Amino acid sequence: MPAGEYDVVVVGAGILGCASAYHIQRLNPGHRTLLIDRLPAAGQANTGRSAAMFRNVFNSGDNRTLADTSIDYYVHLAREKDVDIGLEMIGYLWLMDERQLKESAPQVQAMEREGVEFRDYSAGELKKMMPSLTTEFQPGGEHELMGLEPVAGGLFAKKCGALRPEKLVYHYVDEFVRLGGKVAFNTEATELLLEPDRKLGLEHEPFAWQESRITGVAVRGDLHGEIRSKRTVLATGAWANGLLEPRGMDSHTKAKKRQIFRVGTSGSPELGGLLRTEGFSEHKTIPFVILPRSGIYIKPVKSENAFWLGCDEEVNRAYIDVPPELDELQPEASHYENNIRPVLKEYFPAFAGARPSSMWAGLFGINSIDHLPYVFAESGVVVVAGDSGSGIMKGDAIGRIAAGVCEGSDEARLYGGASYSVGRLHYRDRKVEQEKWLL
Amino acid sequence: MPAGEYDVVVVGAGILGCASAYHIQRLNPGHRTLLIDRLPAAGQANTGRSAAMFRNVFNSGDNRTLADTSIDYYVHLAREKDVDIGLEMIGYLWLMDERQLKESAPQVQAMEREGVEFRDYSAGELKKMMPSLTTEFQPGGEHELMGLEPVAGGLFAKKCGALRPEKLVYHYVDEFVRLGGKVAFNTEATELLLEPDRKLGLEHEPFAWQESRITGVAVRGDLHGEIRSKRTVLATGAWANGLLEPRGMDSHTKAKKRQIFRVGTSGSPELGGLLRTEGFSEHKTIPFVILPRSGIYIKPVKSENAFWLGCDEEVNRAYIDVPPELDELQPEASHYENNIRPVLKEYFPAFAGARPSSMWAGLFGINSIDHLPYVFAESGVVVVAGDSGSGIMKGDAIGRIAAGVCEGSDEARLYGGASYSVGRLHYRDRKVEQEKWLL
Repeated sequence: MPAGEYDVVVVGAGILGCASAYHIQRLNPGHRTLLIDRLPAAGQANTGRSAAMFRNVFNSGDNRTLADTSIDYYVHLAREKDVDIGLEMIGYLWLMDERQLKESAPQVQAMEREGVEFRDYSAGELKKMMPSLTTEFQPGGEHELMGLEPVAGGLFAKKCGALRPEKLVYHYVDEFVRLGGKVAFNTEATELLLEPDRKLGLEHEPFAWQESRITGVAVRGDLHGEIRSKRTVLATGAWANGLLEPRGMDSHTKAKKRQIFRVGTSGSPELGGLLRTEGFSEHKTIPFVILPRSGIYIKPVKSENAFWLGCDEEVNRAYIDVPPELDELQPEASHYENNIRPVLKEYFPAFAGARPSSMWAGLFGINSIDHLPYVFAESGVVVVAGDSGSGIMKGDAIGRIAAGVCEGSDEARLYGGASYSVGRLHYRDRKVEQEKWLL
Repeated sequence: MPAGEYDVVVVGAGILGCASAYHIQRLNPGHRTLLIDRLPAAGQANTGRSAAMFRNVFNSGDNRTLADTSIDYYVHLAREKDVDIGLEMIGYLWLMDERQLKESAPQVQAMEREGVEFRDYSAGELKKMMPSLTTEFQPGGEHELMGLEPVAGGLFAKKCGALRPEKLVYHYVDEFVRLGGKVAFNTEATELLLEPDRKLGLEHEPFAWQESRITGVAVRGDLHGEIRSKRTVLATGAWANGLLEPRGMDSHTKAKKRQIFRVGTSGSPELGGLLRTEGFSEHKTIPFVILPRSGIYIKPVKSENAFWLGCDEEVNRAYIDVPPELDELQPEASHYENNIRPVLKEYFPAFAGARPSSMWAGLFGINSIDHLPYVFAESGVVVVAGDSGSGIMKGDAIGRIAAGVCEGSDEARLYGGASYSVGRLHYRDRKVEQEKWLL
């Protein structure tokens, strides 16, 4: 199948590409829009390998707007449109030691003033609900060597939860196709096409003195050859730089490896009990739990009788500028052993003897300057990147903003009707409020 | 020679590393400060391969402050201290077509209000001073196909010129050593050392749950082993990411290849005449000339009876995240043929038959967000990067700011006494005014 000509080509069928393609087509019903991905289906790369959680808890007003309106849309899909996206509002629970409770109080109060709903739990309440949580450390334990402090309380946020990202992206793709969009899987973009505005027909064009812009992508796979498009939307996440750098452009993001470890509850009545904890939500399970300071999180997955465990690493986890393909990326059992288990077993001793039954590695594309996404047009490309691990939770809003940028609009209308100035997410003259509440 | 312990180790003896090392030692006379470089002498990498020009013409107030005070210091060195740094105040001359003159007028007026001194030249005046300049195009010429417009005037700035970067860095190194600083050449930093604040003595430390910081660098070469230091200053320019990324840090800059082509005047009386143009400065040569729109520049080098030619490429020149060593970087004759010569010969036909007698390639480390340098402390490292091709012209000020950051000061005192808030150059909560006057 030859490649052809389109109004817009969207490269990358992860959450941001699928949401962008859908909103572009929704706003421009007559458009010839093409969505391509090198994998055989949507959401098969990092979208499908994420923890797939969402939250409305951010100190940055921009992030709150992006997440809040996206969550509202997902809730609308699930409850009013009856779309199965696996939505479970299980909440987030930050377990905190004494110092953390004190230090985070001003930020929490500021978020509350902006409408984020929290509930505080005392250590005693938490212990009652989750008997397997340790809230008092015995003197002389390993926690002392490790510098861990006991849990002094918990901060629970309820407009937070989990969804099934593959279901969400399928929904976007289905709607995109229903509106006339075309999809080509097994189609890899190998190069951004750069052409002069005034072609001379000479070899080696464009020259440095020519005005030139991106006019499409070269592809291989099910589609092959050159796809010409008025706009090229690059939503390739962690791989954005691979296509941009050869053209002298940059996504201003870099990738880090993210690993998730699945620990089953079978054989451990205590872990089974923890998974079926009541009182936090209608789902009768624990919330998504974040352990004190360490960046370690516990996601309950009742349908698998398991927990997913992960740990965000700020320091000493390499940035990758142009990552390899996912099958070259191995999860490391040592990461669980060295970085997760030692902390986890202090707070939840029931995990002491547990071993992961499976594990997987993915990537996230990070904007390490302010931890908000970039959406900008440059030389004919619209770059959508740097969701910093929160692409799913902000996906709908980012898709609407990308569609706005694609049209050359100054404003995008988010779900619920709020207007968002798209220039805020450009890397130049950036206006966003920096995010500091990282997990 | 084993490596040892220092208060500060400065990695990279280019202009920014040398200026930083000197100012750190000047402010802390008792400090044990070590400056290392993998090459056998200072300024041998990109500092020595640059066009080595300086200007005070920037629309960003931050850039003007950095450049202005640095130029003042260099003039002070040359004229009051009698230090030979090869300073020649030949000026910069932007040749502009009609539209460019009009479009740049508001920026030029704004800079004039801020004290930048310009002189306007009409096309007629320029033609009189440089008879080999074409100011009128004949209909039907190649310029039409190329979209070039005739020169309508020139903008001359006089607090601009050339210096000899190797002499400047030697001066900084000499002064640094005189104040007690130590220098180790042929010494390559291979790794930033990262250690937990509270060591447990376990294998694989630091773990993700430990507070840890950079405590020095591993080196090989004349020094070998581990250098421990309270502060590590990374002034490795285009190579900054190579040391930072493995530790999960980023310089927020990327490199591009920069090429310079030397064209001699021998055999061309016209080129010889151009090189000996009178009227612009006491040096009796043309200023540093920038051709309309194309990013192409002409540097006169009377001591070599030659011009240096270059062309900054925004689009279609690849960004390099972690560049190879310089000897793997080749200049491309085709770059001169395709990107420089076609434009050059339209404005200065005397170059039509000229061919470069030599050429060389280097790199510049670019901050493509706002085109100002980054100076910031993170996890025990002070990163000095992203001078975007203007490290020499802002080097003294950046060195003073790096010394301030190193000390933990909020303010740095620049040459002439002005105080500069060092946080302005951090990548977070950045305050700088973006640069738009790129060449």
